[in-house]
Amino acid sequence: MNLIDCARNAKKASIQLTKVETERKNNYLTELCNALKQNHSTIINANVQDIARSEKEKIPLPLLKRLKFDETKIAETISGLESLAKLPDPVGKIQYAIELDEDLTLYRVSCPIGVIGIIFESRPDALIQISSLCLKSSNAVLLKGGSEARETNRILTDIIINVSEKCNIPHGWIHLLETRQDVTEMLQLDDYIDLIIPRGSNEFVQFIMNNTRIPVLGHADGICHLFVDEEADLNMAVALAVDSKTQYVAVCNALETLLVHKNIAETFLPMLKKKMDEKKVQLIGCEQTQKIIPVTPATERDWRTEYLDYKLSIKIVDSLQEAIDHINEFGSGHTDAIVTNNRNTATRFMEMVDSANVFWNASTRFSDGYRYGLGAEVGISTNKIHARGPVGLEGLVSYKYKLYGNGHTVEEYASGKRKFTHRRIQ
Amino acid sequence: MNLIDCARNAKKASIQLTKVETERKNNYLTELCNALKQNHSTIINANVQDIARSEKEKIPLPLLKRLKFDETKIAETISGLESLAKLPDPVGKIQYAIELDEDLTLYRVSCPIGVIGIIFESRPDALIQISSLCLKSSNAVLLKGGSEARETNRILTDIIINVSEKCNIPHGWIHLLETRQDVTEMLQLDDYIDLIIPRGSNEFVQFIMNNTRIPVLGHADGICHLFVDEEADLNMAVALAVDSKTQYVAVCNALETLLVHKNIAETFLPMLKKKMDEKKVQLIGCEQTQKIIPVTPATERDWRTEYLDYKLSIKIVDSLQEAIDHINEFGSGHTDAIVTNNRNTATRFMEMVDSANVFWNASTRFSDGYRYGLGAEVGISTNKIHARGPVGLEGLVSYKYKLYGNGHTVEEYASGKRKFTHRRIQ
Repeated sequence: MNLIDCARNAKKASIQLTKVETERKNNYLTELCNALKQNHSTIINANVQDIARSEKEKIPLPLLKRLKFDETKIAETISGLESLAKLPDPVGKIQYAIELDEDLTLYRVSCPIGVIGIIFESRPDALIQISSLCLKSSNAVLLKGGSEARETNRILTDIIINVSEKCNIPHGWIHLLETRQDVTEMLQLDDYIDLIIPRGSNEFVQFIMNNTRIPVLGHADGICHLFVDEEADLNMAVALAVDSKTQYVAVCNALETLLVHKNIAETFLPMLKKKMDEKKVQLIGCEQTQKIIPVTPATERDWRTEYLDYKLSIKIVDSLQEAIDHINEFGSGHTDAIVTNNRNTATRFMEMVDSANVFWNASTRFSDGYRYGLGAEVGISTNKIHARGPVGLEGLVSYKYKLYGNGHTVEEYASGKRKFTHRRIQ
Repeated sequence: MNLIDCARNAKKASIQLTKVETERKNNYLTELCNALKQNHSTIINANVQDIARSEKEKIPLPLLKRLKFDETKIAETISGLESLAKLPDPVGKIQYAIELDEDLTLYRVSCPIGVIGIIFESRPDALIQISSLCLKSSNAVLLKGGSEARETNRILTDIIINVSEKCNIPHGWIHLLETRQDVTEMLQLDDYIDLIIPRGSNEFVQFIMNNTRIPVLGHADGICHLFVDEEADLNMAVALAVDSKTQYVAVCNALETLLVHKNIAETFLPMLKKKMDEKKVQLIGCEQTQKIIPVTPATERDWRTEYLDYKLSIKIVDSLQEAIDHINEFGSGHTDAIVTNNRNTATRFMEMVDSANVFWNASTRFSDGYRYGLGAEVGISTNKIHARGPVGLEGLVSYKYKLYGNGHTVEEYASGKRKFTHRRIQ
């Protein structure tokens, strides 16, 4: 079957999915857990093949690490599915209702988006997690995984399709793409695909955005900042900088640039350096910083760099306003935090920093769907359109307006014979 | 000043706009009403020039009609501004709040989108209406009007800028573009512009979508359907068809294709023809229709055509499912209605028709921001991402996550020392 047929089938399935009851969707999730348990050895065997082949092909180590899908990962995946089954159904919620006139009532009701195209890299658990989020929100999905996870993704897709048939989920709601050519072709199918979610490198997301008319949900960079204000608790500031930078360096919500108010820099920077040295973090600093602690000299390029590594750039700023301006110019609108004891300063920072996540006295690492209590996430969005920040089930629905009348015509209102009441009822 | 500088200034102004209080924004709207009253003769003079020049240039008649900005139009515009001033501020609303742990609280708060690029055709009142919606939602705006309205748009922009200065609205929040070259350039400025809203022909919107990485909010076609079910009240069906088709033919929510259940076609079609003849509507019908009433034969192309004229295509269908399938295949996801006395049939139609607006026993002409009680609209969206259907103030805001902590680090949770409470508080 060629890709257009698959996409057309997915579109058809997506219409059928709108009337699949919550119970049937949750039953699917439970049965998928059972099937993963029953087939765990087959899955692990396929994954071992992928790892062996990828080692031979010398794929980068972080990619290889993420490729691993063992007993622990399977157990985590199952636990994630169990949580997802417990979340409320995001579809069919009345967002509001308004009486336009007697017997003429308008409802805005949440509904699925339709067909979602998702492109992700090596982690095979992403296939299960993302497709399940789509199913729970009644969306059909076209998935393209990394070729390094080929065998694992195939067996997982087979399991998903088997469980789908068993649970009476509309045929064709999920399809696995395997080639790069498929991706190129998918980007053209704006008649069938309603949203693309690419998960991968910055360059990759940019490439997708440049090559499709389909809306794209995702984030480019995660250049996150922590601003240590002159009224900060300096011990707290050190602890937050260390956690934001080193708790997990290879992720988009890790700290990349530390901004330090000039009035506390001389006291703060030596305290920071001591702790960062313990964690073996390379410090890169502006000219002012260089006068206080030994650091690698920073260039403007550092302010625009997402290291994803044990590296931290440091800049001394004269004021809150300079910190805000720096973040709005060089940041990526992902996650930015302030450390201060002054509520007004924090409020101004949180108002004027134009980012999806703005924090006061907390680590940047908190910006995550699980930690936010969303249950699970398809990714973190730095878009300002549709969903922003960690995107859970709610980001996978749209809404429609449903109007219930009794033969009402517009001419009666245009001619002044009738008047709208516009009475909000929900 | 070149366009990049304007866009950069708009971006700066958009950050300042986030802290402009509701009162100051409403005061601006009131002062704008006053200024329009005071300058009405200057405005009308400029508009007379535009009309004279456009008549010489022989621009199409509907365009010329929309270009007119007289006393009546000015009064309507002022009345719209007064309503807008009364609407609640869409910015700064807490959408929800959740306690993640003791002293660690997450708020999702509505915020402006940033800088919005709007391209509209001749109607000069659109300049006032759209820029005011942007201001009320604290967005900066780059506007490109039609060249036919050049003089009127210039004087209106001058008035807006004067009132802005007087009311202490951040400098540079609005800028009027004048050339096509400006539009081409604007489409490249994804560093500064967050959303493009094009208002114009289908081809034009498609062109915009194909030539920018900036998200686009708008609708392509409005191919609206009315399905007359076998259990319809036939008199109601005739009245709704006539209103949907003829109440105003040149708009996107006008009826283009009528679907008729085969079981009532022989009774219904002659009733319909009588009324449509009175309104001088040309009927174009499928083979089945041709056997019942005299019509122009339809081709597949008719099902895909937005006539925007006194023309109606008619198709006889065998079942509700065929009607749904036809709409999902040939429709444009705008507005589709069913006439039936059977609630189950209506529910199924409204669930499975994948359109922004789905109506039961009401005219398609109701899909409109004013009629929906949204106050005003920037347009109707057939996007399924972000805003769908008539887009009012709510479609011009995004949200940000604000996290308030007390030195919380992620490591404490990762190591199991602390647990999330995830207690919803609002």
